[in-house]
Amino acid sequence: MKEQDIVEAYLTVRTYECDSYGHVNNAVYLNYLEYGRMAVLEKNGFSLAKLKQMGAIIVVRRIEIDYKAPAREGDRLVVRTYLKDHNKMKGIFSQEILKEPDLTLLARADVTWVFTDLQGKLIPVPQFFRDALGF
Amino acid sequence: MKEQDIVEAYLTVRTYECDSYGHVNNAVYLNYLEYGRMAVLEKNGFSLAKLKQMGAIIVVRRIEIDYKAPAREGDRLVVRTYLKDHNKMKGIFSQEILKEPDLTLLARADVTWVFTDLQGKLIPVPQFFRDALGF
Amino acid sequence: MKEQDIVEAYLTVRTYECDSYGHVNNAVYLNYLEYGRMAVLEKNGFSLAKLKQMGAIIVVRRIEIDYKAPAREGDRLVVRTYLKDHNKMKGIFSQEILKEPDLTLLARADVTWVFTDLQGKLIPVPQFFRDALGF
Amino acid sequence: MKEQDIVEAYLTVRTYECDSYGHVNNAVYLNYLEYGRMAVLEKNGFSLAKLKQMGAIIVVRRIEIDYKAPAREGDRLVVRTYLKDHNKMKGIFSQEILKEPDLTLLARADVTWVFTDLQGKLIPVPQFFRDALGF
Repeated sequence: MKEQDIVEAYLTVRTYECDSYGHVNNAVYLNYLEYGRMAVLEKNGFSLAKLKQMGAIIVVRRIEIDYKAPAREGDRLVVRTYLKDHNKMKGIFSQEILKEPDLTLLARADVTWVFTDLQGKLIPVPQFFRDALGF
Repeated sequence: MKEQDIVEAYLTVRTYECDSYGHVNNAVYLNYLEYGRMAVLEKNGFSLAKLKQMGAIIVVRRIEIDYKAPAREGDRLVVRTYLKDHNKMKGIFSQEILKEPDLTLLARADVTWVFTDLQGKLIPVPQFFRDALGF
Repeated sequence: MKEQDIVEAYLTVRTYECDSYGHVNNAVYLNYLEYGRMAVLEKNGFSLAKLKQMGAIIVVRRIEIDYKAPAREGDRLVVRTYLKDHNKMKGIFSQEILKEPDLTLLARADVTWVFTDLQGKLIPVPQFFRDALGF
Repeated sequence: MKEQDIVEAYLTVRTYECDSYGHVNNAVYLNYLEYGRMAVLEKNGFSLAKLKQMGAIIVVRRIEIDYKAPAREGDRLVVRTYLKDHNKMKGIFSQEILKEPDLTLLARADVTWVFTDLQGKLIPVPQFFRDALGF
């Protein structure tokens, strides 16, 4: 999976995701980012449940997110995700949240993840996962 | 556990629980009710994790909730819960959400729950649970 | 808007909506129901923001929901909503949450709503709203 | 407000905040951080509603968060917040989420915020806010 292999996930802002300012709350952006990352997993045949059955838990280790502009009720958004960096122990997804139709940048984030076994012990990125994402 | 055995759980409305009207969203009230029911479990020595270890999953089957007045950022609330009815297969918790300091009634609900095993098959209310709650 | 005028809203269960049982949490079903009701508003040219500009706030007064079967990560759902009953002061939406592709019934609900002005005072259902929904 | 002026906010992990791994979802940590920042505002006599009445909206611009260890149902947590840096246009809160009773570090974050007026235009940090926080 390279920079050109951007995976896009589409969603519409729901009313209950907006706070008393009428803006999507900053924590909800992390839900959107998770939704975008799940689109990458799904495209490669994985789900959290499937990974768990294979003895692997994917865990977010670090998030850096810049909020550029607010999203509001009914806005149609696209989350763009690609694998920015990786080694044997971790990977970094680069993600953007954009607003349709003119693709205004709402937020940009780097999300670092690792794998643990079912007991929570850190393990290298499983080979089946590296194969699927091509690294 | 009888009507006089009301369990009280206290919480303060958090900013991110309010929607664009500045009110606590109606779905969040169900979070508060769950919080109140967990206080009953906890008082009797249970948690969801502990029940699962004992092979039992408690599942909500029906909720009837009347919304009486809105809650807002910073409001201090109390959730009052008692076991209203029960038989071998299910129980009904009666719950109220009240606002401090004058105990204004914000919502009243009846929540019917059942038990399943780990495969999701309906089972009678476990004896250890009936013993704990005294029925 | 009559029984045959069912409005359908589609969604896929997101990972963060599932609890430690791997099931969609019961409060999240109310988010799905709200999503379904917003599809009715939207179809008729309304949003919460637009209603607020017109001086009207739509408020949920009562929810009765029966949970029939659990939803899990990745499930594709459809929320079906129609106006079951109404008078000058309130309306009742009947809603179902079904799972694709075989339309298994996951939940059924009746949701009673009223209108208030911007100060929170109960008002009759605005004429523009009754006209839009045809009652 | 200096480093020694750490504000502490206490909370207990609620069942519905845990995902299918039984861990608090990473987005929920941002809710906890917001809860911690609101404790700072509250201690200084502010709420989001009060700021809005004064014509000022506080907006998160950037979050860097490192997840160190998972939180689970029933864990008692403390969120520690202090003002790490500031200038005329923005401030940075340094925040930690720790688990009682041994204060295990679960997450550490830097949160950069700015102010806008009610129309969303960037404004300097209001003088009343700087006075309250002592910078």
